[in-house]
Amino acid sequence: MVSLNCLADVCLIPIGTGHASVLDEVTLITQLARELHLSTTLHSAGTTIEGPWSEVMDLIGQMHEKVHQHGVIRIQSDIRVGTRTDKKQTPQDKIDIVEKKLKNI
Amino acid sequence: MVSLNCLADVCLIPIGTGHASVLDEVTLITQLARELHLSTTLHSAGTTIEGPWSEVMDLIGQMHEKVHQHGVIRIQSDIRVGTRTDKKQTPQDKIDIVEKKLKNI
Amino acid sequence: MVSLNCLADVCLIPIGTGHASVLDEVTLITQLARELHLSTTLHSAGTTIEGPWSEVMDLIGQMHEKVHQHGVIRIQSDIRVGTRTDKKQTPQDKIDIVEKKLKNI
Amino acid sequence: MVSLNCLADVCLIPIGTGHASVLDEVTLITQLARELHLSTTLHSAGTTIEGPWSEVMDLIGQMHEKVHQHGVIRIQSDIRVGTRTDKKQTPQDKIDIVEKKLKNI
Repeated sequence: MVSLNCLADVCLIPIGTGHASVLDEVTLITQLARELHLSTTLHSAGTTIEGPWSEVMDLIGQMHEKVHQHGVIRIQSDIRVGTRTDKKQTPQDKIDIVEKKLKNI
Repeated sequence: MVSLNCLADVCLIPIGTGHASVLDEVTLITQLARELHLSTTLHSAGTTIEGPWSEVMDLIGQMHEKVHQHGVIRIQSDIRVGTRTDKKQTPQDKIDIVEKKLKNI
Repeated sequence: MVSLNCLADVCLIPIGTGHASVLDEVTLITQLARELHLSTTLHSAGTTIEGPWSEVMDLIGQMHEKVHQHGVIRIQSDIRVGTRTDKKQTPQDKIDIVEKKLKNI
Repeated sequence: MVSLNCLADVCLIPIGTGHASVLDEVTLITQLARELHLSTTLHSAGTTIEGPWSEVMDLIGQMHEKVHQHGVIRIQSDIRVGTRTDKKQTPQDKIDIVEKKLKNI
């Protein structure tokens, strides 16, 4: 168990489904993410999840399990995950400080 | 030159800067991205860019050049890039269809 | 706990260290990986780890913890992780079948 | 055109092919990579390419084009790309210094 807080951004890709759309799979995992108490944000290139390392990674593992149960044989995910020990930052904080700085240039 | 249209999501990380903040670098590359005619969206885990392959990749290369000029010796980026031949989809389209489907479940 | 078997490839980047080299950090995490019973392979763009989902992700979390203990304030990792329900494949198997097919073309 | 030297590691995923194997696609792009003069290395989680930014990114774009020509409608790639201004390092150099340091601990 790793309790270190993290911000993870996951992009999950079903392989071998026979159709180019990934809508069903993204809907399934977004639904799963929103049922939990972890804070998640959907954007066009992935889903951002905030919380303790093991809980976040277990959620992503459950996404894989759910998509496999839905009939997908193979799944590949790309996860960008950051940890820091100096301060806590929400996904929105990270955007806000950039926009604020751009306004002041 | 590759003219195939793509959606790229880039997360750029300066290495060896001596401080944990990446605000300066993200501001620099966001500024660069907004000066161009390519459509870009900033989110908490990266910047999404839409356009012809070579133009998008050149923009990301220019981001590296600009951050190096700013004094950063080493840079690592993660780029998620998608192409499709069946239809054109904006980053917002990709979010909208998921949200719509979730509402109808 | 997610027991689904996975192949994960991790590229860990320390931020704000004040020097461009990441040798110390890569050595630390490679050492940690080799102490465990999970199968790991170091390549030039990351480390590949094979095993049950939660064990693999916990190992990567422990890598972050160890690098933080070493004094690094902020860390960003990129993890490519694949799962499949049809068969088990080692990292070497994946390379071998491509090389074999290329020889037969 | 961006002439900055880079080390890029690409993992290309065909979507909607109807079968879990990606062997055909990986063979195609490995063949394409080896026809060119850029230095490339195949490993279990991707292909590492070394060279000037625009040439490397054009090669990856050509990989997408070739896989589309092969009939794949949608493709997603993950690219890890690094640039540095202090020294040139080959993929093998990066592995060798870690192994050397581990031996001396």
